[in-house]
Amino acid sequence: MNSPAIPQNRLNLPETLWWEEGDLYLLDQTQLPLNVVGELQTSLEHVSDSIKALKVRGAPAIGVAGAYGLLVGLKEDRKLGLDDFLKQVHSKAEWLGEARPTAVNLKWALKRMVEFANQQSTTESGELYDLMLSEAKRIHEEDRELCRMIGVHGAELIQPGQGVLTHCNAGSLATSEFGTATSPMYVAHQNQVPFKVYADETRPLLQGARLTSWELQQAGIDVTLITDNMAAHIMSQGLIDVVITGTDRVAANGDVANKIGTLGVAILAKHFGIPYYVALPYSTIDFNMEEGHGIPIEERAWEEVTHFGERRTAPEDIQVRSPAFDVTPHELVAGLITEKGLILPPFKENLQKLYSQG
Amino acid sequence: MNSPAIPQNRLNLPETLWWEEGDLYLLDQTQLPLNVVGELQTSLEHVSDSIKALKVRGAPAIGVAGAYGLLVGLKEDRKLGLDDFLKQVHSKAEWLGEARPTAVNLKWALKRMVEFANQQSTTESGELYDLMLSEAKRIHEEDRELCRMIGVHGAELIQPGQGVLTHCNAGSLATSEFGTATSPMYVAHQNQVPFKVYADETRPLLQGARLTSWELQQAGIDVTLITDNMAAHIMSQGLIDVVITGTDRVAANGDVANKIGTLGVAILAKHFGIPYYVALPYSTIDFNMEEGHGIPIEERAWEEVTHFGERRTAPEDIQVRSPAFDVTPHELVAGLITEKGLILPPFKENLQKLYSQG
Repeated sequence: MNSPAIPQNRLNLPETLWWEEGDLYLLDQTQLPLNVVGELQTSLEHVSDSIKALKVRGAPAIGVAGAYGLLVGLKEDRKLGLDDFLKQVHSKAEWLGEARPTAVNLKWALKRMVEFANQQSTTESGELYDLMLSEAKRIHEEDRELCRMIGVHGAELIQPGQGVLTHCNAGSLATSEFGTATSPMYVAHQNQVPFKVYADETRPLLQGARLTSWELQQAGIDVTLITDNMAAHIMSQGLIDVVITGTDRVAANGDVANKIGTLGVAILAKHFGIPYYVALPYSTIDFNMEEGHGIPIEERAWEEVTHFGERRTAPEDIQVRSPAFDVTPHELVAGLITEKGLILPPFKENLQKLYSQG
Repeated sequence: MNSPAIPQNRLNLPETLWWEEGDLYLLDQTQLPLNVVGELQTSLEHVSDSIKALKVRGAPAIGVAGAYGLLVGLKEDRKLGLDDFLKQVHSKAEWLGEARPTAVNLKWALKRMVEFANQQSTTESGELYDLMLSEAKRIHEEDRELCRMIGVHGAELIQPGQGVLTHCNAGSLATSEFGTATSPMYVAHQNQVPFKVYADETRPLLQGARLTSWELQQAGIDVTLITDNMAAHIMSQGLIDVVITGTDRVAANGDVANKIGTLGVAILAKHFGIPYYVALPYSTIDFNMEEGHGIPIEERAWEEVTHFGERRTAPEDIQVRSPAFDVTPHELVAGLITEKGLILPPFKENLQKLYSQG
């Protein structure tokens, strides 16, 4: 059921997800870096399971996967009348939107798909399906372009000879092509600016070790892997000049929800006087969420902490916490790098301005 | 070659190391918590390898293991004349002292053994060996007593209902019986004070997951395991009232070298207004080291970061940093808990006072 060949993007990295002859494929990121394989998505449940299992992850990529994934779930509904088809669009979009609670992009993309479907004048379900597929492809292409624009706006934050720290993977694998946190790095690298990246391995699921260090290495960027708890020491040695991460959701006041550990990195950066930037598509800003403490924090399975792969590394019956995200207060953030430009504090006012402009 | 039965200490935990019928046994901590096995130490090289491989770890335990380990290496030298025997004492103590560069206790214990040997009036190598064995046993017993006294002095720092965060394992397994960082916890627990402990798993070698959470669980203390990068989130939720860790070496100004990640925890604690205490035997203070930045930081094998057990989790040929320790500046330390009492800032002056008292 695996795809025979994985298409490459403009950075010569494998595509995170792709639509081919009526089917959705996801690069199975849980197998990286050992195996580079794509997986055909056979049903809506399959897509939801893949999102839950982090085969596809990263807020923007989950959004794109959600848009295409909805179409995977609607394939058999094309034979229904328009009203029944639209009912399926609504209920399946709502159901798929529950796959992961913290990322706002999944619900954002699905809402856009539903609104798009509602607005079309066609009376034929098959035709509407095709129009929706074009919309999903537009979401995908827009994500490519906006990721690149994040890099264009953020590249100047990386000066020659500097050290950049990043946490988790907000890279090509988390998005379409340039990534968010990595986009300034890829653009700076294309501009032949020399710099070093330190990648936190990012326990428990090691997205930094498995994904970020892999994709930066593949792209020819000078990257060094560290465990999360080495960041303070590396900063204390003067090796880090700027910290850039992605985010799963930004509140209207600039508070940032991101992979567990981000809050710690932001506090360390403040301690050492290092600016911390967050790279994100505009769609990640949740204007309905006034402050970060309202953002739901997904608690994941205990086994992610007590086991490493299949191997148990903690005592039996040990109590565990496993929050997947944390919230960094906006006071610790130097700026938000978006496709619309670099947003500086005060975030509440400046985000509101952006919102008013549409 | 394994020991048939592992002796238990007063906390009903297995002894970290023991001398039985002329032989040294170490609890092989690399196999915990899955297997609880002791390993007979057959030679000086064997002891050195065990220390390097972290079969025995924790600064105080390494000290005790060094004292007994020297005797393992001297077994065959008892037939030598006294002068030649003493030459072996000197050269083998010096060689064994190189097994790990950061912990001061190893060299401290070996120096004490060498000085003890020099001071004896016997002219018979076998008799000197026996006297030195008694001295090693005194070091072991003194470690038991001083660890308990650390707890007696530190227990009041843990109030009913509070949350305690610790990093790495400065526990029973790292010492003789009560541990250093854990000693206030064990004594508070014996005093029936209810409290919760959060144990950082402590990458790369997971001493927190494998050892601390195991020994506290065995002793009936309410312990919850988290990944290192969850500490900031857990602190932000108001769950931590005090941070206590051990240390491998304290400089004369109070700077603290300890397991990689300690600096980060100390900075987070400061950010959240949580006091950070360091528990240590007096022998851990290096009065010859003016400031922490002079302490050598051991860089360990890259595989500890790129692999998990036998399993590779990072790309091939990835660049890695693997510092085993970091240095926390004394400004971030609320107090040093020693067997001689709680030492508060200013550390340079107060440590000097302690030193003058001998």
